[in-house]
Amino acid sequence: MIVTVKKNADEKSLNQLIQSFIAKGLQVNDSVGSDYHILGLIGDTTVLDEKSIKANPIVDDVTRIAAPYKKANRLFHPEDTIIDVNGIKIGGNEKIVVIGGPCSVEGLDQICQLAKDVKDAGAVMLRGGAYKPRTSPYAFQGLETEGILDMVEARKQTGLPIVSELMDSNQLPEFEKYVDIIQIGARNMQNFTLLKAVGKSKKPILLKRGLANTIEEWIMSAEYIMASGNPNVILCERGIRTFEKYTRNTLDLSVVPIIKEKTHIPIIIDPSHATGNWKYIEKMSLAAVAAGADGLIIEVHEQPECAWSDGAQCLKPEKFKHLSEKAREIAHVVGRDL
Amino acid sequence: MIVTVKKNADEKSLNQLIQSFIAKGLQVNDSVGSDYHILGLIGDTTVLDEKSIKANPIVDDVTRIAAPYKKANRLFHPEDTIIDVNGIKIGGNEKIVVIGGPCSVEGLDQICQLAKDVKDAGAVMLRGGAYKPRTSPYAFQGLETEGILDMVEARKQTGLPIVSELMDSNQLPEFEKYVDIIQIGARNMQNFTLLKAVGKSKKPILLKRGLANTIEEWIMSAEYIMASGNPNVILCERGIRTFEKYTRNTLDLSVVPIIKEKTHIPIIIDPSHATGNWKYIEKMSLAAVAAGADGLIIEVHEQPECAWSDGAQCLKPEKFKHLSEKAREIAHVVGRDL
Amino acid sequence: MIVTVKKNADEKSLNQLIQSFIAKGLQVNDSVGSDYHILGLIGDTTVLDEKSIKANPIVDDVTRIAAPYKKANRLFHPEDTIIDVNGIKIGGNEKIVVIGGPCSVEGLDQICQLAKDVKDAGAVMLRGGAYKPRTSPYAFQGLETEGILDMVEARKQTGLPIVSELMDSNQLPEFEKYVDIIQIGARNMQNFTLLKAVGKSKKPILLKRGLANTIEEWIMSAEYIMASGNPNVILCERGIRTFEKYTRNTLDLSVVPIIKEKTHIPIIIDPSHATGNWKYIEKMSLAAVAAGADGLIIEVHEQPECAWSDGAQCLKPEKFKHLSEKAREIAHVVGRDL
Amino acid sequence: MIVTVKKNADEKSLNQLIQSFIAKGLQVNDSVGSDYHILGLIGDTTVLDEKSIKANPIVDDVTRIAAPYKKANRLFHPEDTIIDVNGIKIGGNEKIVVIGGPCSVEGLDQICQLAKDVKDAGAVMLRGGAYKPRTSPYAFQGLETEGILDMVEARKQTGLPIVSELMDSNQLPEFEKYVDIIQIGARNMQNFTLLKAVGKSKKPILLKRGLANTIEEWIMSAEYIMASGNPNVILCERGIRTFEKYTRNTLDLSVVPIIKEKTHIPIIIDPSHATGNWKYIEKMSLAAVAAGADGLIIEVHEQPECAWSDGAQCLKPEKFKHLSEKAREIAHVVGRDL
Repeated sequence: MIVTVKKNADEKSLNQLIQSFIAKGLQVNDSVGSDYHILGLIGDTTVLDEKSIKANPIVDDVTRIAAPYKKANRLFHPEDTIIDVNGIKIGGNEKIVVIGGPCSVEGLDQICQLAKDVKDAGAVMLRGGAYKPRTSPYAFQGLETEGILDMVEARKQTGLPIVSELMDSNQLPEFEKYVDIIQIGARNMQNFTLLKAVGKSKKPILLKRGLANTIEEWIMSAEYIMASGNPNVILCERGIRTFEKYTRNTLDLSVVPIIKEKTHIPIIIDPSHATGNWKYIEKMSLAAVAAGADGLIIEVHEQPECAWSDGAQCLKPEKFKHLSEKAREIAHVVGRDL
Repeated sequence: MIVTVKKNADEKSLNQLIQSFIAKGLQVNDSVGSDYHILGLIGDTTVLDEKSIKANPIVDDVTRIAAPYKKANRLFHPEDTIIDVNGIKIGGNEKIVVIGGPCSVEGLDQICQLAKDVKDAGAVMLRGGAYKPRTSPYAFQGLETEGILDMVEARKQTGLPIVSELMDSNQLPEFEKYVDIIQIGARNMQNFTLLKAVGKSKKPILLKRGLANTIEEWIMSAEYIMASGNPNVILCERGIRTFEKYTRNTLDLSVVPIIKEKTHIPIIIDPSHATGNWKYIEKMSLAAVAAGADGLIIEVHEQPECAWSDGAQCLKPEKFKHLSEKAREIAHVVGRDL
Repeated sequence: MIVTVKKNADEKSLNQLIQSFIAKGLQVNDSVGSDYHILGLIGDTTVLDEKSIKANPIVDDVTRIAAPYKKANRLFHPEDTIIDVNGIKIGGNEKIVVIGGPCSVEGLDQICQLAKDVKDAGAVMLRGGAYKPRTSPYAFQGLETEGILDMVEARKQTGLPIVSELMDSNQLPEFEKYVDIIQIGARNMQNFTLLKAVGKSKKPILLKRGLANTIEEWIMSAEYIMASGNPNVILCERGIRTFEKYTRNTLDLSVVPIIKEKTHIPIIIDPSHATGNWKYIEKMSLAAVAAGADGLIIEVHEQPECAWSDGAQCLKPEKFKHLSEKAREIAHVVGRDL
Repeated sequence: MIVTVKKNADEKSLNQLIQSFIAKGLQVNDSVGSDYHILGLIGDTTVLDEKSIKANPIVDDVTRIAAPYKKANRLFHPEDTIIDVNGIKIGGNEKIVVIGGPCSVEGLDQICQLAKDVKDAGAVMLRGGAYKPRTSPYAFQGLETEGILDMVEARKQTGLPIVSELMDSNQLPEFEKYVDIIQIGARNMQNFTLLKAVGKSKKPILLKRGLANTIEEWIMSAEYIMASGNPNVILCERGIRTFEKYTRNTLDLSVVPIIKEKTHIPIIIDPSHATGNWKYIEKMSLAAVAAGADGLIIEVHEQPECAWSDGAQCLKPEKFKHLSEKAREIAHVVGRDL
């Protein structure tokens, strides 16, 4: 970490500042420039809070050099983490996983039929929302426990592991009992209470990127889960909020090589929420696989126009099948299977 | 609501669509253009989900005309809502409230001393964090219950009502017992589980705007609380995330006249989190009062450079006093007191 | 276009408003709702200015239904436009074009050597900046005419057509004489003076998307060029400005299917400026081809660390060669060649 | 400037890098950390290009400590710059200037009448567009020279200096002859050709902030003008582009104290373009004055609903008068006059 001190800082305050760093086990290198005085801190700077240092009136600016994450950092954990979900592996050089299913579970028949359809179309896991985060209190909020149990039945019929979103730590026992991957939604990416709660679980956690969160903040949220004891994190990009209006969000595919470089965690892509428009999903899925993603999570519905939520971004099963076939060909070009 | 239908839509699908609207109690006006076919829906359209309609293959686009909120809507509730907090009133043409205190409660002596200082400097309420949402799991997470009890003692000594942030619905009983205004932080603005929980309380809720949430989404989150039964909502702008780097966030003061126009809810401004820099806080506070804000919430600390969190954005008590005196003069120009 | 009129609007003002639309050749459909009064305008609404209508005190809101562009609109020009550059075709189902070269031309030897290298590596055109838009007045501003002439020599030696950025309409004669594709840079995307000037040329124009411009504004800038008489426009996405800090810009690949849907214009991708980091360029290039892009424009330099500008985002020729070989394999999967 | 070198960098490359800095007259301080190796560069670092240094394979990151601007920097020019426009002074502790007028000049009678009206209402200068940057090629593009001459007549009748936007360096002689302040619009903030051209003039330049430009980039554009020889720059904030939809742009008032801290240049605020809605203009104007702005530039029109452009954001003269009276009272509170 670099601390820039104002040139006219008084000796005493400067010494106090330097001593405060030494007291935290850091080494301090001091260089005097023409307009500034620069302290280079060497050692484990994750214990320092930039903003508190910046509050010191003799300090002009603070720059972090080393990344603020440890457990998620590839520097300290060079091999890829591979997550095992009922025998299906995610990450490393494993097969690219395709997860399909409806935005919301709408009933037993619907989800069992869709489970069969997405399996036929190439999916290896089933997604479905039972607890739904909706912008409006007047919108459908999900079938809740009934929806989870419907998915359990769909798993029984198809063998597909199930992924569903957890919104409340009070439902964690239910999710630990029934669900194979626990999803933390974009709006809860910095719900630290929930992150700590799932950090006490051993279930794989699918951590979606927040609407307007930097990659570093996202990795820090993974770090929360890992630091609480759960190393089984999968990251999921679902588009970020920008000024653009022709898409619901802007899909940021550059996260794929960046997450692979900075961390050892698997990364999957959700083109459905990113684009908000079924017409663009196949193209964005192929792009994601070409960029090196470890998986895709895609909304599928028999009758998108009748879906209880997010119909505009659902694919019909036959279109989903076409997508996964083309994605497999792209996977082969980049040295993966699907 | 306006539904634009593709011109070549088949008769049958169009009729089904129109019937689906009529079945929901809406009136449908049908106009045929050269390139599009336009349906105007008249009635209570808050029951409709734009995205599901958009999923219909014959639909080109959907445009909402009426706002999606009801209880928060000034159209249906023309008088200003005034919130009463232990006798202190917020909103309408009442005195502008100034809330001061540290980012984090650091101990009994600190908070009691600061409570006296901010009271002397013009504050009518005390803020302080006991449960802290921190980006890093390695940063100080707050004194928790001990911090709340320290604030209770500070209230006893000064009479100032206390404001603190709730991060977990499991702590709601503690907050209902001890705290006067329950704050929902920016990162939890769309934690719908938490919104519904505080909607069952009767305590005033200070709802901060999310980092990247539109004003409409923010009002919808207020609507969640109100629709769950709690009409006592106060909105708080604390800066939004943009590309700018010289400030921590971009303070959006235009929310003040907009919230006053669209809703009947009080609106206060947090210039500390918005700018992230104590040097800009007074100017932004005066601007907020000039724009018509109902209050200010400001971080104050005796020794900002020693604060356990967010020191860079803390004012010393004497600077805070100067701020509130100037703010009072501005208040008089715009027909308010402080 | 939909005009929402306040319900309590007086009869006379409403009639004046309706007559003003009829006077412009539009048909007006009038529906009365419970809270609003809705006018549906049918006909060529590109002649209307939304903001002026919105200024009418009886108007609540205005919504455009039909796109504001005509010449760029696929609706009125269903076949793909294919641009011919000295026999190389861009767009439609033609071969994907790869354009390589340095950020800045640094001298005759450099550009001639690089031209050979990028040609060997698979490029079919040469890029190079002679007039450079630099944030700082103290940074290298380009070799100007000398740089253009160096590129002409490189073309002579390799046969590669040349692409260079025009910053000033006064240099247009020089560019028309020497350059094969005239680039309009991101910072000039809404320099309407320059757009009108190149609209009078017949040369192909490579129009980069502005840093923070919507897709619609970008198409409107293409429309400026086309409406001025030059139909030879190629669009180029180079990343947009967001809050993310790990990349220089956020590459928005969803533009590829959107531009293909809304317009008939070719679209190419610049992953170098988008990511700002050579490590991510190959992955993003493969993703772009998988998404359906018509071309790639990539910065290449023999010694990136010595480049006079933008070295961090340059590929060495051997890495560029690897990229174009993998991109060709991806192209085959999506039914194209390269 | 701080250059972080990878720890495993080879000796030879490191020495070459260090020598390259010394060759540019800089002093280099070298510290070795556990994971990184840090070079602190001392001296005039405006000559260095961060991106080229970053391209060196042994370099991990580069951090600029000193600001990249010199002539605009308050550090090297501590006194406020005060611009004199026909005897009216802008900046420092001078009177706050109010500039009023239409978005577009629509004819001689209109502009002369409006000039009288805005003068009566408290304006000391007249604004009006003769060359208009419009998103659509089909929208009104301005009266051009005729519009400038109409403003000249309005100045003759009222004595108000005139402000108008220059879009093309070829019109600079016309502007130098007739106009008192030359405006560079937001879309041209990084049209470096135009910045250099007006840098050769001696006329005061009103430099609007770009739609999505950082404060640092904005100051660098001022630096372009100053480095070309024209020290008479006035900055103008007009809102930045964000995700918010209830306003046209997001007015960033924190620029006022920041510009005052970092530079010595006057700063004025344009609430009309920022909000895009006349209803919010007065509140935002009062806020701007409370924040310390040196002036306001506001769109005024007799009949906003008939304005040829941007009617929705125009104030009628009587509302403008009310605004300037209230703004004067706010000015007195912050120690200024108006």
